[in-house]
Amino acid sequence: MAATPVWSVDPRTGKHREQVAVEATHREVDEAVRAAHAARGSLADAGRRAAFLRTAADLLDEAASHVIEAADAETALGPGRLTGELARTTGQFRAFADAVDEGSYLDIRIDRADPTTAPPRPELRRYKVPLGVVAVYAASNFPLAFSVPGGDTASALAAGCPVVVKAHPDHPATSELCASLLRRAAVVAGLPAEVVAVVHGFDAGLELIRHPLVSAAGFTGSIRGGRALFDAAAARPVPIPFHGELGSLNPVVVTAAAAAERAEEIGGGLAGSVTLGVGQFCVKPGLVLVPEGADGDRLAGALTKALGETEPGVLLDHRMRENFVAGVRERAALPGVDAPVTPGSGGEHTVGAGYLSVPVRTLLEGGPYEVLLEECFGPVTVLARYAGQDEAAALLGRLPGNLTATLQLSAAEADGGPGPAAELISQVTTLAGRVVVNGWPTGVAVAPAQHHGGPYPAATSHSTSVGGTAIERWLRPVAYQSVPDALLPAELREANPLNLPRRVTGG
Amino acid sequence: MAATPVWSVDPRTGKHREQVAVEATHREVDEAVRAAHAARGSLADAGRRAAFLRTAADLLDEAASHVIEAADAETALGPGRLTGELARTTGQFRAFADAVDEGSYLDIRIDRADPTTAPPRPELRRYKVPLGVVAVYAASNFPLAFSVPGGDTASALAAGCPVVVKAHPDHPATSELCASLLRRAAVVAGLPAEVVAVVHGFDAGLELIRHPLVSAAGFTGSIRGGRALFDAAAARPVPIPFHGELGSLNPVVVTAAAAAERAEEIGGGLAGSVTLGVGQFCVKPGLVLVPEGADGDRLAGALTKALGETEPGVLLDHRMRENFVAGVRERAALPGVDAPVTPGSGGEHTVGAGYLSVPVRTLLEGGPYEVLLEECFGPVTVLARYAGQDEAAALLGRLPGNLTATLQLSAAEADGGPGPAAELISQVTTLAGRVVVNGWPTGVAVAPAQHHGGPYPAATSHSTSVGGTAIERWLRPVAYQSVPDALLPAELREANPLNLPRRVTGG
Repeated sequence: MAATPVWSVDPRTGKHREQVAVEATHREVDEAVRAAHAARGSLADAGRRAAFLRTAADLLDEAASHVIEAADAETALGPGRLTGELARTTGQFRAFADAVDEGSYLDIRIDRADPTTAPPRPELRRYKVPLGVVAVYAASNFPLAFSVPGGDTASALAAGCPVVVKAHPDHPATSELCASLLRRAAVVAGLPAEVVAVVHGFDAGLELIRHPLVSAAGFTGSIRGGRALFDAAAARPVPIPFHGELGSLNPVVVTAAAAAERAEEIGGGLAGSVTLGVGQFCVKPGLVLVPEGADGDRLAGALTKALGETEPGVLLDHRMRENFVAGVRERAALPGVDAPVTPGSGGEHTVGAGYLSVPVRTLLEGGPYEVLLEECFGPVTVLARYAGQDEAAALLGRLPGNLTATLQLSAAEADGGPGPAAELISQVTTLAGRVVVNGWPTGVAVAPAQHHGGPYPAATSHSTSVGGTAIERWLRPVAYQSVPDALLPAELREANPLNLPRRVTGG
Repeated sequence: MAATPVWSVDPRTGKHREQVAVEATHREVDEAVRAAHAARGSLADAGRRAAFLRTAADLLDEAASHVIEAADAETALGPGRLTGELARTTGQFRAFADAVDEGSYLDIRIDRADPTTAPPRPELRRYKVPLGVVAVYAASNFPLAFSVPGGDTASALAAGCPVVVKAHPDHPATSELCASLLRRAAVVAGLPAEVVAVVHGFDAGLELIRHPLVSAAGFTGSIRGGRALFDAAAARPVPIPFHGELGSLNPVVVTAAAAAERAEEIGGGLAGSVTLGVGQFCVKPGLVLVPEGADGDRLAGALTKALGETEPGVLLDHRMRENFVAGVRERAALPGVDAPVTPGSGGEHTVGAGYLSVPVRTLLEGGPYEVLLEECFGPVTVLARYAGQDEAAALLGRLPGNLTATLQLSAAEADGGPGPAAELISQVTTLAGRVVVNGWPTGVAVAPAQHHGGPYPAATSHSTSVGGTAIERWLRPVAYQSVPDALLPAELREANPLNLPRRVTGG
């Protein structure tokens, strides 16, 4: 059987650009995983790991013009956005290098022996060790920050785990270029190139999740694809953790007082957030609860104006464009759903931004309206007009898990004055991983306290894929009981030769 | 259909003692979960939660004689062991109360806003919130410490999660008694009794894991039962974390130098560890790598002597006794397997301790010998005699995941002198959650640094069911972005009114 070619495609024209690779065979996936597994010991040295991560950042920065050009040609995301995404990507590598140096991710705990307890307590020294080879499934919408050189890869390498990335078909050339830079960085840092590998192809992705030497997986993508891989990970003879980010509606609640105070500002801000990256962000606000009445109408008017002035944009690929056009058509056709700015086909290769509007009481009927509570990838949002706080609360109670939930409050409400704010904070905390007040969910800061995850289907685990704690996904604890100092890992020795933070109990 | 009765049975006689309850119907499971879910808000106050945990410990201590009598009548574990187990159980409640007071389990991280970065970094404040109702599956072999008032229950309540326990059929009366004490403690602490419930019956256990309002589960038991529940948890429309402890062989490696130095001591110690609690510990050493030759023979001789002098014991129930007798018979019948002290039936209701011996090179043949690498619950272990370090390493390389791995080293090896110790530590770290040197794995200290878990099938997740970090299983992170102080949870407010430990970045 001939190898299946992997093409780089220009979404602006739909034309094939070049053949980049071929889809990996069963044997090639096996070889990549075995080579990564064999190289895992080389990542044990934390200093070398940190140097590798910094070198990777440096090489990506040096190759910036090539990387951005390659990514733009395949994704049409534009040099501006991609320049920012590359900075985020290299910043992420450097932040994880700093985390490796600092060491608190090892969560070291030491309990000294206590012969006075009944039974006597032995000495225990605990830290965390890397899981082994990690499979990373790259996202369509972030060719850098959530793909080959993305947060899953950076955090797994920081933890000491080799990585095999299943490249996304929307940007195979960018994937190959970034992989070659990462592999070069490994060699420069004195590590085998095999600590990073890339495979292409749908079947290769399934082979990867089933491979006995793969120990964990990270995924960013759709509910359908992610759930299939989650199920495969759970069905293995030895199940493995599957950290998937699958989909999110990212509800926004605009209070009556906020609409009264800032209707135009909120409508304009919403339009900016919905159309950022042509609506292809996993934290795009997809459902906005807006009060009925004049203030809400002003907000809708501002949204109408801003979206009406938005230029058509190019989606990541033609299948996505078809899904978007069909998805908004299905939603707009429901009785009682208006489309003040009709989203949809904007030209042969582009789509136009827009929004739908529907009364909350209609949404609460369920049935065919459930589709309005599902993510629709692309530049569209749904305004759900509510007639009182009870209606808003009832709709929030019907939502699945989300990456984010956003509240638009009045100045007095934000100050803790009377109103529904406290109740809303409490309610949206139960359904999201990040709660935003008087801002927009797009733009996920890479920072130690960040949490990018949330109740299913936002994430398949309670972990984060962005921020300092993302490294925790690739580690497991081990406790050493009464192990003599000479035989302990350096991280746990009494003299603390690596100067690591630790919590000590007793003695 | 008549309700299915739940009987308390005396394992010393096989006789029914009393009918304790009936198996929960679909509707009763649903009601228990809904009541627990409705009560979850009452656990939000950390001070009240800590008071509840301490009151639970006090009430269990006050009722000690009743609790121990009830547990002994159903399990035959004896008052001595059960007195110790109760102390461990109440100690566990108090330790989690202290953890709630201390607050580092919330893992609070605060990133101050930084307007100088590109893009500007917003303020982020992250902590952890409870998941919701937790299902706990009680273990047969610890009627207290891993059952209704066990570590899963204590850690889940400490996290702020109501608990519905599926009682183990080996000790329903003890379960009911303990549940009534926990529910009384809740009421004394000003909480609704519904924060703890108990259900009986196999079907009730399945209903529980599938209930939409159950958010996570803890399990201690067999691979077969645990895997079925793990699969059900993963197959839900909204999958939930399943923290199961399923089975472990707990390998021990005796080096040639250790055998030369301490053959008799090791043989005697091993006998004590294997027969503790009639071999019904999940950390019982089930496979012991002993060198061939005279020193190993001396060790085997000491084991033979000690086990030969052990009185027959009563297992937890008659099905377990049948499984033990059949399991050791199947293993002993394999060609090349000796039974220097034949384990098996020791009387109508008792079993005798014993051990099997087999050359490692025979074990490495695989096929029918694989059964010797599976846990056999009860007072039996397998001595695997090895002819050199390579053979020992090859066998270790074939083992599944374990809760523990133990090394018996000579004094010089423990001091870091020449020998295989460093290599062994490194190898067993890959296959266990706890590594013990010159001790025995039985006796799992309740301590902040403890880790009771390990690679599958020792555990279905990378969490621990014992020790300070067990609470992490029942929490998920939430980040608050730009949320005004007045609207933040008290735990995250700028003035830190609850005086909680936190990591602050920037500003």
